[in-house]
Amino acid sequence: MIAWKNLDTTAAYKKLQGLKNHVCLQDAMSGESGAKRVKEYCVPMAGGLSYNYAAKQVDADVLAVLKDLAEEMQLTEKYAALYNGEVINTGEKRLVLHQLTRGQLGENVMADGVNKREFYVAQQQKVADFAKKVHAGEITNAAGEKFTTVVQIGIGGSDLGPRAMYLALENWAKQNGCFKLEARFISNVDPDDAASVLKGIDVKHSLFVLVSKSGTTLETLTNESFVKDALKNAGLDPARHMVAVTSETSPLAKSSDYLAAFFMDDYIGGRYSSTSCVGGAVLSLAFGPDIFARFLNGAAEEDKLATNPDLLKNPAMLDALIGVYERNVQGYPATAVLPYSQALSRFPAHLQQLDMESNGKSVNRFGEPVDYVTGPVIFGEPGTNGQHSFYQLLHQGTDIVPLQFVGFRRNQAGMDVNIQGSTSQQKLCANVAAQIMAFACGKKDENPNKNFDGGRPSSIIIGDQLTPEALGALLAHFENKVMFQGFVWNLNSFDQEGVQLGKVLAKRVLAHDTDGALKVYSDLLDI
Amino acid sequence: MIAWKNLDTTAAYKKLQGLKNHVCLQDAMSGESGAKRVKEYCVPMAGGLSYNYAAKQVDADVLAVLKDLAEEMQLTEKYAALYNGEVINTGEKRLVLHQLTRGQLGENVMADGVNKREFYVAQQQKVADFAKKVHAGEITNAAGEKFTTVVQIGIGGSDLGPRAMYLALENWAKQNGCFKLEARFISNVDPDDAASVLKGIDVKHSLFVLVSKSGTTLETLTNESFVKDALKNAGLDPARHMVAVTSETSPLAKSSDYLAAFFMDDYIGGRYSSTSCVGGAVLSLAFGPDIFARFLNGAAEEDKLATNPDLLKNPAMLDALIGVYERNVQGYPATAVLPYSQALSRFPAHLQQLDMESNGKSVNRFGEPVDYVTGPVIFGEPGTNGQHSFYQLLHQGTDIVPLQFVGFRRNQAGMDVNIQGSTSQQKLCANVAAQIMAFACGKKDENPNKNFDGGRPSSIIIGDQLTPEALGALLAHFENKVMFQGFVWNLNSFDQEGVQLGKVLAKRVLAHDTDGALKVYSDLLDI
Repeated sequence: MIAWKNLDTTAAYKKLQGLKNHVCLQDAMSGESGAKRVKEYCVPMAGGLSYNYAAKQVDADVLAVLKDLAEEMQLTEKYAALYNGEVINTGEKRLVLHQLTRGQLGENVMADGVNKREFYVAQQQKVADFAKKVHAGEITNAAGEKFTTVVQIGIGGSDLGPRAMYLALENWAKQNGCFKLEARFISNVDPDDAASVLKGIDVKHSLFVLVSKSGTTLETLTNESFVKDALKNAGLDPARHMVAVTSETSPLAKSSDYLAAFFMDDYIGGRYSSTSCVGGAVLSLAFGPDIFARFLNGAAEEDKLATNPDLLKNPAMLDALIGVYERNVQGYPATAVLPYSQALSRFPAHLQQLDMESNGKSVNRFGEPVDYVTGPVIFGEPGTNGQHSFYQLLHQGTDIVPLQFVGFRRNQAGMDVNIQGSTSQQKLCANVAAQIMAFACGKKDENPNKNFDGGRPSSIIIGDQLTPEALGALLAHFENKVMFQGFVWNLNSFDQEGVQLGKVLAKRVLAHDTDGALKVYSDLLDI
Repeated sequence: MIAWKNLDTTAAYKKLQGLKNHVCLQDAMSGESGAKRVKEYCVPMAGGLSYNYAAKQVDADVLAVLKDLAEEMQLTEKYAALYNGEVINTGEKRLVLHQLTRGQLGENVMADGVNKREFYVAQQQKVADFAKKVHAGEITNAAGEKFTTVVQIGIGGSDLGPRAMYLALENWAKQNGCFKLEARFISNVDPDDAASVLKGIDVKHSLFVLVSKSGTTLETLTNESFVKDALKNAGLDPARHMVAVTSETSPLAKSSDYLAAFFMDDYIGGRYSSTSCVGGAVLSLAFGPDIFARFLNGAAEEDKLATNPDLLKNPAMLDALIGVYERNVQGYPATAVLPYSQALSRFPAHLQQLDMESNGKSVNRFGEPVDYVTGPVIFGEPGTNGQHSFYQLLHQGTDIVPLQFVGFRRNQAGMDVNIQGSTSQQKLCANVAAQIMAFACGKKDENPNKNFDGGRPSSIIIGDQLTPEALGALLAHFENKVMFQGFVWNLNSFDQEGVQLGKVLAKRVLAHDTDGALKVYSDLLDI
């Protein structure tokens, strides 16, 4: 039987509290012991990646207690309950099935009268068939001309994940001869967002993917109207230029306004939807369904690794528990995500949503307030850029911020230049290696301005190249990390009630049904 | 006489500690008292902006002590010392003159044997003349054709600020008939960054602006070579396509490799350089020198407001001190910047550098460790996007994160659509107003999942439209806020020694001069 319980009711957590500042990172990472750690504290991931946690403030003692915590918290069992179709999203009384969009780890999951794995595969196939017809020129604009651009209209999870994934593979696809359509994204209700995207594309040859699970997301429907007006003004029939990604019960599902509709369901949260049709439509159109399938395979393989009950062989669980140690024992309030790959420029923004929307909560899954801190603030920018910016605070600020690096041995575009005896790619990699050590060990200096205390923990995910498989593995790793942390904190990581109040109040403002401070703000903003 | 002293040596700080949780925001912002606060807690800024701090956890008591603190810390006098040319950057023994790039607030500042205001104006004029010739077709490519694109090559302060400013005005310029050249930016040493930008432009009609104060920034010189190779491969002469922005003593200053060189100096930190030639070259080329001048005027006006010794009439000082109260008394570790304007999409990344690189420090200006926390983590994304993402944690997470909103009554592009009785711009504004109230007052609910405690502080900068003047004012406001906070924390906000160690270690990696853990990381990354 699974027991859902609060972190502070476990014996392991009490033991863990006694291990605060247990590891001196400066010592641990110095000399031969440091070299040994980097070799040993490394777990293989899917897609040719590995998770290296040598520069985290853990040792055999801490890891042993984290292992106890994993067992006491039944993390493996809870994950199994999730992928076997239990109602894990208790707040909304829903299954949580995003892993099923890329593979099946356990029993057949039946819901809404169908086998859900079959449902997701069928939708993926529908998307693939559609994309192939677009690429082959069988589905065209009214003039019989091929589409050259795909524009996703969505917000939140319907935007951040797919956008980050598209940018991650854009140059790779161009280099590998599988770049089909340029993709653009419209998300903000700020009319300047849609206006700017529309000015930059050739609408006559553009296909728009409207993404809204409910079919009622106000920002998205507003942007749809914006786009439809633009199409009509260009003398085009919007119905020839739009597809919908939505749920089967939404008003968009059977509308003649769309060339096609692809379905997701209530068991896929927006921030977990990149491997569903929400990511599938735009990515299959941009790069072809085969590339999207490779991306799914990377994620599926990573999902499998997360089933391993051996903590030291389970990268997502290990990453999750080290994060809990840093948050609840070491007391660090934020985590920075620092990919040394320009292609991952929007990956931190996606992780920011994934993590903060899932675990930024103060009540447990039974609605009781918890007495410990939960999800941290997540932020980040690609290196080396960040090095010339906010790294100052990370190195010498008064708060310690744990760091998540990502680095690849090879770049994507295949162009490089050799300056001062090294390529750009070598410089990029040299920088990330150097940063890990600078943060961990620091450097004493007589000039206090130039003194580095060190003791600032980081981990790095290292890959050969950012391929579709590697990207899928990377995505699934963080989804599963967040899931395990939610289990440890005893949260429901799969609802987002915190975004509702603002929506309700915004409607009142638009209806001019306000008083007090809200009325004055509305007046100041000329609403 | 100015006394530089630590925050915790002041009487006002001790008083302030006694005012922890002094204001109940839920009560203060409710009913008629809330309406009154929104009207009264509002300070005019330049560029048609105003700073509204009604939803901050302050009242007359807290403000009175903050006023004492401002006086005890001699903030006005320290600012005057700075703009009158004292050596405020004590670590590097330099003056701090970025305000002088846009106006003169005090005495003539002489350095390097010249009047520095005259020097900055002369450089600005040189940029303006050059830009006008490019626009008029007097400076062209070798084929006599006009340039259509300008590409900035720089990193850190030479990238983030100018890029954020360009994006902020791009649509405004297009709408107002002053859009001259498309701008692009290359910054990361990741070769995929330069490759991707070069693939997206027509190099034959592109002008490159190389920005490096020292002329030795490795990332930037590497990217310069990358670009030069691309130009040569296209049969073009790089010297006809490049200008340099650098210091007069740099190796780039008198090279025949460049069409022109524009000068900055050691008194302008990278993160404060958007109003110098670093921002001036690309912005004048993109929008014309007149627009850049309007941007400078907005900043200069805002700088003037910051000289006001009356705290309640000095938006930057007020913002700074409220931030100190939140950080050092309330104990909040991070601040989110949330512009409700897609044009400000990269403004948070610029502020992240500005703030975290300036005040992310643990020793005071005399090199002594301080016993209080200094600069917070800064992060953010544009609303309404963030609402569908990390706002969950901001509303219901276990930590409180103070918020800085920015909103405008009118959009830039002049296109809009009316859906369900309101325009997109109205929806955008309604959302920001609603969020402020949701964060401040929350809403009790029987379902603990749907309960909002409120008590989460925010301020908002409201403007009519994001014009060049408004943008200049916005930029200067935050620069001056950060400066005042540095004074309060007794830091040198104008050096960045924390970024050096990584550079040194990266060089060792590239020279294969490593052992221990660093050697193993280097091997894992195939360097």
